[in-house]
Amino acid sequence: MIELTDEILAKVIKKRKKASYKGTYGRLLVIGGNRQYGGAAILATTSAVYSGAGLVSVALAKENHSALQARLPEAMTLDFDDLIKLREVAKAADVIVIGPGLGLERLDLLTEVLNLLTENQKLVIDGSALTLFAREHLDLPFPENTVFTPHEMELERLSGLKIGQQTKEEVQGFVNQLGAIVVAKSSETRIFAPNRESFILKIGSPAQATGGMGDTLAGMVGGFLAQFHGETEEVVAAATYLHSLIASVLAQKSYVVLPSRLIEEIPLFMKKYECN
Amino acid sequence: MIELTDEILAKVIKKRKKASYKGTYGRLLVIGGNRQYGGAAILATTSAVYSGAGLVSVALAKENHSALQARLPEAMTLDFDDLIKLREVAKAADVIVIGPGLGLERLDLLTEVLNLLTENQKLVIDGSALTLFAREHLDLPFPENTVFTPHEMELERLSGLKIGQQTKEEVQGFVNQLGAIVVAKSSETRIFAPNRESFILKIGSPAQATGGMGDTLAGMVGGFLAQFHGETEEVVAAATYLHSLIASVLAQKSYVVLPSRLIEEIPLFMKKYECN
Amino acid sequence: MIELTDEILAKVIKKRKKASYKGTYGRLLVIGGNRQYGGAAILATTSAVYSGAGLVSVALAKENHSALQARLPEAMTLDFDDLIKLREVAKAADVIVIGPGLGLERLDLLTEVLNLLTENQKLVIDGSALTLFAREHLDLPFPENTVFTPHEMELERLSGLKIGQQTKEEVQGFVNQLGAIVVAKSSETRIFAPNRESFILKIGSPAQATGGMGDTLAGMVGGFLAQFHGETEEVVAAATYLHSLIASVLAQKSYVVLPSRLIEEIPLFMKKYECN
Amino acid sequence: MIELTDEILAKVIKKRKKASYKGTYGRLLVIGGNRQYGGAAILATTSAVYSGAGLVSVALAKENHSALQARLPEAMTLDFDDLIKLREVAKAADVIVIGPGLGLERLDLLTEVLNLLTENQKLVIDGSALTLFAREHLDLPFPENTVFTPHEMELERLSGLKIGQQTKEEVQGFVNQLGAIVVAKSSETRIFAPNRESFILKIGSPAQATGGMGDTLAGMVGGFLAQFHGETEEVVAAATYLHSLIASVLAQKSYVVLPSRLIEEIPLFMKKYECN
Repeated sequence: MIELTDEILAKVIKKRKKASYKGTYGRLLVIGGNRQYGGAAILATTSAVYSGAGLVSVALAKENHSALQARLPEAMTLDFDDLIKLREVAKAADVIVIGPGLGLERLDLLTEVLNLLTENQKLVIDGSALTLFAREHLDLPFPENTVFTPHEMELERLSGLKIGQQTKEEVQGFVNQLGAIVVAKSSETRIFAPNRESFILKIGSPAQATGGMGDTLAGMVGGFLAQFHGETEEVVAAATYLHSLIASVLAQKSYVVLPSRLIEEIPLFMKKYECN
Repeated sequence: MIELTDEILAKVIKKRKKASYKGTYGRLLVIGGNRQYGGAAILATTSAVYSGAGLVSVALAKENHSALQARLPEAMTLDFDDLIKLREVAKAADVIVIGPGLGLERLDLLTEVLNLLTENQKLVIDGSALTLFAREHLDLPFPENTVFTPHEMELERLSGLKIGQQTKEEVQGFVNQLGAIVVAKSSETRIFAPNRESFILKIGSPAQATGGMGDTLAGMVGGFLAQFHGETEEVVAAATYLHSLIASVLAQKSYVVLPSRLIEEIPLFMKKYECN
Repeated sequence: MIELTDEILAKVIKKRKKASYKGTYGRLLVIGGNRQYGGAAILATTSAVYSGAGLVSVALAKENHSALQARLPEAMTLDFDDLIKLREVAKAADVIVIGPGLGLERLDLLTEVLNLLTENQKLVIDGSALTLFAREHLDLPFPENTVFTPHEMELERLSGLKIGQQTKEEVQGFVNQLGAIVVAKSSETRIFAPNRESFILKIGSPAQATGGMGDTLAGMVGGFLAQFHGETEEVVAAATYLHSLIASVLAQKSYVVLPSRLIEEIPLFMKKYECN
Repeated sequence: MIELTDEILAKVIKKRKKASYKGTYGRLLVIGGNRQYGGAAILATTSAVYSGAGLVSVALAKENHSALQARLPEAMTLDFDDLIKLREVAKAADVIVIGPGLGLERLDLLTEVLNLLTENQKLVIDGSALTLFAREHLDLPFPENTVFTPHEMELERLSGLKIGQQTKEEVQGFVNQLGAIVVAKSSETRIFAPNRESFILKIGSPAQATGGMGDTLAGMVGGFLAQFHGETEEVVAAATYLHSLIASVLAQKSYVVLPSRLIEEIPLFMKKYECN
């Protein structure tokens, strides 16, 4: 496994070109945020915007629109029950992040998205969408550039590998079969791509162990995929590494690192580490 | 009485272990926040999250969900009129904080919780729930690790001891009979546990005397109980001490210390004082 | 006229006593905030809380509750159409601030309050309530400690004195007849009390000339009246002076001073200038 | 073309006069913010307030009122479906900004405004209103002081000039015929006025290329027009220059510049560059 270092950031985070506009940095759609878990979608969406995605929309329960807009006027909002609008925005998206706070009752939205996406789109499957995917044994097609972001229990559900059995070899085998990138989250997060060398993350802090951190990572992964067009697993690795890097720096002064606090730092850290 | 000092913090606030995840730091549920007092539940919940509780939910009037999410996307929200959902989340909780902004009309929720809780759960009874408990002469069982957080008038209602009679001996006698921890809030807050030495807090500032401070303390006590597993009265004492410590530091530059400002400091102060 | 200086602050802003609790610092109720002008009530209420009033409620249109709570969980909220609740809270209040964003259609609330208040309560009449008072030629009684906070046009409506005629002598004559304190807001604000020497404010900045500044002042005046029990016109003068002092300091670095930015400074400036 | 420098700021941003009040700095109305694009109206309105416009209202979908007020209590809110109220406020406005997040379904509001405005009012046409104007070949009259703020694709729709053909000469020809000021946004934004020398902006950063930046500029242009009464194209140029100046300074430390972050700096930069 390749141990990730700051180098992955300089490799992935390109200096922006003068002649560019918001469309250059991608259209991203987050789908999630039912009534109980609205905050998860808010965090993922905010994280995507602060990572630099050019145009960000979020489809979530309409009861959560007001809170989303109060925190993040930079994003556009859809009611996740308005399928006509949702399809329209999903078709135009470069990246879709599905799952943060979606809820296990919305299998319909996951299948809708899987049926709709085409090969030139990118997909991040997180949170409730992972559990739905595992539970329903979905064998719907997904784009080549699809990223699953399970924590250990979700990986168990997805792969059948018990937590104690999630060795490098076993997970790699599963990933080769799955045909997608997998961010296997744990205290030492690993990133696997089919038939590629995997990455391991040795930084990170237990101060990150708090509700909303996974949603924040999903948004960052989406935000990076929207803008950066190198090897997909490297782009994903850079987002994941940066997430833990920021957390570990903030953890030097903070017993617990709040996701909303981490998000504020994203554009500042990206600037420090951008390619020169 | 033992006078509390910084030592209680180093004793209680453990350095987090590398191999941990959000579940390690506990599931906490706040129940409160009716239409008039929504802010109380928002403050208690925010305080619990900033204290480091791993997974925090709040059950409150649905009119308050939007404000809660706009301030704190890290928390999950329930409608406190949806008893089925409430029971499900309450059963899975390690700690329940009931009372901040609950309102005197919601005896049903207090009895629901008291009937539902088992011995391995922890309970904080604050605000309206204290008054309800006193008024209704509830003799429902509560877990061994239950904490009451009355101010002087609430303690009078609870114990029958007039404010002038709330001496160490009298309150200790009441606490022995009650069989729960009591945080007796006043300008010199004391913490009593049944048949144990009590603690007294000599720090603290009149700048703390403002609406919402009690709710903030209740959330901190809950947050500490969710994570720290030493002697319960020491964990409660540490949370109470830290609350006043932060207030007294902020009061050096601020005529009144706003609860929402105090909350921002919690993770920073916890880091400074964590056990090394 | 007495020119106000920093001395008024040290005279009025008392050091808080150790043995005090939130009730010591007064119960305050803001009434205002219809659908169009919700922000005015939010600013007045926030300003009262940040000035140190102990327990603050606001009665406003229910459409505005969510925004109020999202900004200020320290306050309690009432629907200004729920007269039963409103009367209950108004009767228990030490100070009522009526008018910020109330709207000219709510004469009923103004008359309700004037009929309800007793001599030991204090009243601040601002914004729409000033115009209603003038327009309706209300001759309802008001408590001795009532403060009107008109700008020049509102003072014209109230007193019949054209803007050019609002000389010290003429306004003093009107105030003697009115029997209340008048804060005559202008680029050189003056404070008049019946048969007393008046105060004039030479500090202040045109950077204050922006929407919401008057609401902020009304909240500060209310907040000061809730806590400080010296001569009423001095308490009012101190609040008014501090409002302009903060604005003029912020204006050194800011072309326009936003009310919400000014409010954050209130407790910090109060600490600097408190009586030693 | 005249290359814009800091000089335009000192020329336009006048030191405020002591004897002034909020009305001196203009009444401004933003019209936009349908359910999907509420954030656009929030950003434009916030930007206008932070630029120093004296009294700012916004007409937007009522679902967005709560978020607007939670972020910006300094503004007044109207339901954009309440035409009676909208007309009343529009008639009293010095400046109207129409378009941010308006949506292509609201042609009615654009024609309403164009029919209503008189020559002494100023108008900024942005976002959806530009597309509507182009699509409907509107030949309704607009005030002399009207500003269109198209990006390259919107300018193509408006003028018929393909993006590659938008040379200085061609755009100037179109502007002379249109009879309004045009801010032609691109990586080198240009400002054209009928039969006048045009301005070009060489500063600015690709970090600005993110959703909401255009809305923020529209609000600044409106805010400047409300207060500053020099040559209209110079006032517009100053606002546009300042927008890019702030972005380029923030971009030194931030990979992407969030509109809401940029807005906070407006009054601070205006103070630095005001005329002495």
